[in-house]
Amino acid sequence: MDSINLKKLAKELNLAVSTVSRALRDSHEISQETKNRVKALAQKLGFQPNPHASSLRQNKSRTIAVVIPEIENNFFSQVINGAEEIAQQKGYHVLIYLTHEDQEREKSILALLRSGRVDGLMISVSGTTAEHEDFIAYRKSGIPLVFFDRIIDGIDVPKISTDDFDAAFRATELLIKRGAKHIALLSLSPQLSISNKRREGYEKALQNNGLMKQAMVIECGQDDEVNRKLIRQLMHRKNRPDAVFAAVEKLAINTYQVCQEENIDIPGDIKVIGFSNLSAASLFKPSMSTIVQPAYEIGREATRILFKIIENKILLPAEKKLILPSTILERESTVG
Amino acid sequence: MDSINLKKLAKELNLAVSTVSRALRDSHEISQETKNRVKALAQKLGFQPNPHASSLRQNKSRTIAVVIPEIENNFFSQVINGAEEIAQQKGYHVLIYLTHEDQEREKSILALLRSGRVDGLMISVSGTTAEHEDFIAYRKSGIPLVFFDRIIDGIDVPKISTDDFDAAFRATELLIKRGAKHIALLSLSPQLSISNKRREGYEKALQNNGLMKQAMVIECGQDDEVNRKLIRQLMHRKNRPDAVFAAVEKLAINTYQVCQEENIDIPGDIKVIGFSNLSAASLFKPSMSTIVQPAYEIGREATRILFKIIENKILLPAEKKLILPSTILERESTVG
Repeated sequence: MDSINLKKLAKELNLAVSTVSRALRDSHEISQETKNRVKALAQKLGFQPNPHASSLRQNKSRTIAVVIPEIENNFFSQVINGAEEIAQQKGYHVLIYLTHEDQEREKSILALLRSGRVDGLMISVSGTTAEHEDFIAYRKSGIPLVFFDRIIDGIDVPKISTDDFDAAFRATELLIKRGAKHIALLSLSPQLSISNKRREGYEKALQNNGLMKQAMVIECGQDDEVNRKLIRQLMHRKNRPDAVFAAVEKLAINTYQVCQEENIDIPGDIKVIGFSNLSAASLFKPSMSTIVQPAYEIGREATRILFKIIENKILLPAEKKLILPSTILERESTVG
Repeated sequence: MDSINLKKLAKELNLAVSTVSRALRDSHEISQETKNRVKALAQKLGFQPNPHASSLRQNKSRTIAVVIPEIENNFFSQVINGAEEIAQQKGYHVLIYLTHEDQEREKSILALLRSGRVDGLMISVSGTTAEHEDFIAYRKSGIPLVFFDRIIDGIDVPKISTDDFDAAFRATELLIKRGAKHIALLSLSPQLSISNKRREGYEKALQNNGLMKQAMVIECGQDDEVNRKLIRQLMHRKNRPDAVFAAVEKLAINTYQVCQEENIDIPGDIKVIGFSNLSAASLFKPSMSTIVQPAYEIGREATRILFKIIENKILLPAEKKLILPSTILERESTVG
């Protein structure tokens, strides 16, 4: 709001201009009653604060950004809902940006955000992010940053993720316990932290059970058509696997689609388990065994920690690297 | 960028300060070659434009906002992907805001956006939006606005939606053709444009077939637990319907969940069809018949039209109220 309007408000309310200004900025120095009076009159008179001018003064946008690689993924939508819950409590808006797994878009979003458009940022990095310079440049801006799910180990900011190694280990062990001997891992970009950890968990379970010679990792991508083609080829191999472990939801769905097309019986011909937060997985034919990440909680915790940094509070050691465990929900696709 | 840095750049490149400034703003008056030279040096010297100061000057954020009621919905995620495609071509960023079907949050987002944070806005209104004053106030700001999917008829801005009446009519006719006589409609908020049009299509089909006495509309809400309870009660009625038409995706999934729990056979005991953009609907047991909205195209078209307004281009009459048809994909849940 410009100073002329501030003065009008102050005169009308018989308050100091500085009091009116602080009331409009929600300063803790001003009583709630005064804030209400000031805001009610400002609204009545149709005074709009100028967000840019006001941001320049206060350096507060009351906005945080959540940057995610894709939106058609139940994990990320639940993370966002968790983030919105905390932001709402703080009176903040959440902006969502998509990188579409593209480092160039991520770069451009980071450049935009490091100029002070938001008070803080939480990000799950794109699958094509090979260099970390943009994050290092962003860090220099001093604007709070938190990684979630897909993290970069070398950058010293809080990281919130699930127990990827452990969950992958347990899922692979489950397949082995159900009789699988030849388990294929469908994986996303090997540049991703989660891909490596999930792969290590898978390999560790194979090693422990003397099945490492049968290891088979298929690197898939973003395009469903391409992924289905890779899975179709896998299904037509002479040494077809007897189980598939999908490291992300879309690859589990792609596997189901191929098996449906090709009349391959799940779990008779091939067992399937995948990381997935799709509640409809229980409605599949057969119902799909899943590794469920605590997505909502990851969103809440990442946001809570982000606000601690924004508010200059001290982080506990556990908040610098927070790991929330995933749960395996066994259904029909791994049994039998 | 401040004027000191602009001057440094201009001196270094042997250009006028105004040329450097326009090059950094991507003005069409400056050649691509010059822009490249200016930007390369600016980047090399680590000069950051100040987005707020720059926005104040240019009144251009190179950002559009997409406001949606919820994120765990494949329709909206596909709309966003369509919007991103067009925005990307224009060199714009897309901000996504969620209202969580709450008029208060919608109000607060509109207030934020009408102060000039974005160059344009496309919105699908929340299910609790009873008054339209916030939209009227937003309109006065002069910032381009487009409605998609859930529209408000009384407000004179472009509206992009699907043929809700027609699609609902055809879906209901399909159920009747398959032998259903007693069809329940599971509907969202009656305040929504789409709820009314879908209901009218459903009722018209019942009327045409002399089944209007058997009409049964269940108003559901946002909470899955509550919805499942309503559906459970419906299934335990003496005059249980022989078919369910779900007006939105989540209600179709809630119906499947209740039928699974209660051992009610789809389609033997009850036929099911629903609006849904979930590609995994074909993997359900039984595969689910769906009405598929052209979500990606709705996102593309709404964004294309929004940019025509931003760029002061004349809209064709058809662009002021654009209706893109939905497709019925019949699968197992309605046959038999």
